[in-house]
Amino acid sequence: MKIVLLGSGNLATQTGRALKMAGQNILQVWSRQPENAFQLADLLHVPAAKSLAEIDRTADLYIIAVTDDAIKEVATSLNITDKIIVHTSGSTDLSILEGASDKIGVFYPLQTFTKNKSVDFRQIPIGIEANTAEVLNAIRSLAERLSENVIDMDSHKRRTLHVAAVFACNFTNHLWVLAQELLKESNQDFNLLRPLIAETAANVQLTNPINLQTGPAVRNDEEVLNKHLHLLEGNLNLHELYHKLSQSIVKFDKPV
Amino acid sequence: MKIVLLGSGNLATQTGRALKMAGQNILQVWSRQPENAFQLADLLHVPAAKSLAEIDRTADLYIIAVTDDAIKEVATSLNITDKIIVHTSGSTDLSILEGASDKIGVFYPLQTFTKNKSVDFRQIPIGIEANTAEVLNAIRSLAERLSENVIDMDSHKRRTLHVAAVFACNFTNHLWVLAQELLKESNQDFNLLRPLIAETAANVQLTNPINLQTGPAVRNDEEVLNKHLHLLEGNLNLHELYHKLSQSIVKFDKPV
Repeated sequence: MKIVLLGSGNLATQTGRALKMAGQNILQVWSRQPENAFQLADLLHVPAAKSLAEIDRTADLYIIAVTDDAIKEVATSLNITDKIIVHTSGSTDLSILEGASDKIGVFYPLQTFTKNKSVDFRQIPIGIEANTAEVLNAIRSLAERLSENVIDMDSHKRRTLHVAAVFACNFTNHLWVLAQELLKESNQDFNLLRPLIAETAANVQLTNPINLQTGPAVRNDEEVLNKHLHLLEGNLNLHELYHKLSQSIVKFDKPV
Repeated sequence: MKIVLLGSGNLATQTGRALKMAGQNILQVWSRQPENAFQLADLLHVPAAKSLAEIDRTADLYIIAVTDDAIKEVATSLNITDKIIVHTSGSTDLSILEGASDKIGVFYPLQTFTKNKSVDFRQIPIGIEANTAEVLNAIRSLAERLSENVIDMDSHKRRTLHVAAVFACNFTNHLWVLAQELLKESNQDFNLLRPLIAETAANVQLTNPINLQTGPAVRNDEEVLNKHLHLLEGNLNLHELYHKLSQSIVKFDKPV
């Protein structure tokens, strides 16, 4: 499959790497920031397109991995009607590509990507969707070369999954930011929490999280909850989040 | 060191295992629930005390690993004045043991424990505190046989660390509970999130979380934030937490 990759962010970079490792033929990369396109082109040993006008029209697949608000514009600018165009966004409906081509789809790898760290793409769930069975099969065929975990997923399911991922990854990471802030106030090191974080995440690989809930809230231990809230009185944001999250646990979880 | 272990919960169980593996001499275990004491005694191949009256008075160290609200009562009931008594609670001051013995301290292993899964105690931070230098040294000497990560920690620091651990572990796990709830509503499997969770936790072992923040909130991507809030309108709890946590990220994190 001949592929053009549009975008140069974390997702574009790691998807490009995975495509190359799977032996796919990337004809070009393009980015709104030409210097980023050249950087990614260097990394992947492929040519860069300096402008949308230079995009190779002979590819089979155009992967749009740009910010959500730019997808429509980039897709339309391609002026391609008979090749497959996919986007990679969790929160964007397939329909945003309507009119850009007769063959449209979604290729959504669910992972948190950074530019510099490779990930094991084989384990990453890839949600796919398309406007025809033929296009879906073409996307599936490519996705299965990268991952063992390819799933048909309509736009509503994909969006729900994206929100769940925000809770599971972005908000989780932010709780660690807050925990580090709190430790700094008493001159303690974040390293103290790293074994705890590793164990917490390892446990949930094997069991559902509802079975792993520990801490004062799930025990409804009001004495400890009040001590903690008292300690956080100087930090309104932490105090409010502690209260809201504890309430959510009390309402939600059965004790283990 | 001759040790009596009081308590039979997750922390008592895993601490007992670690003490045995380090070759320590556990004279007895005791629990308010005698059947639990017998179960733990079986696991550790040590005798169980059926009541506090049966506690062996010849130990060097009494480790109280019971719920916070029972520590004082258990400590006082021991009727021991010249042996070391420690508790294992993150949120309880050392001073709660005053009057129970002349030699008091804290032995606080920071980890999320379950009864059935052994953990690598060598990596677990153990915060220690005592009322005299001599007692502190005795506790340190024991702790260093279990862990490479023993830290002097006064009651205020320990309490702060405990609150940070609630954010880093208990609240984190609850976010995964909420993510699973959301996926269930659209008939999707929690397995979709497991590689993401593993990667999120692996990344923070190497870098500070502030450098790893991704997602719509840190990009201040109001279009996606509003789409997500719209999708959560049917679930007040998720909607409110999504809003509060996103606000906290917007206020707090610099974009990466």
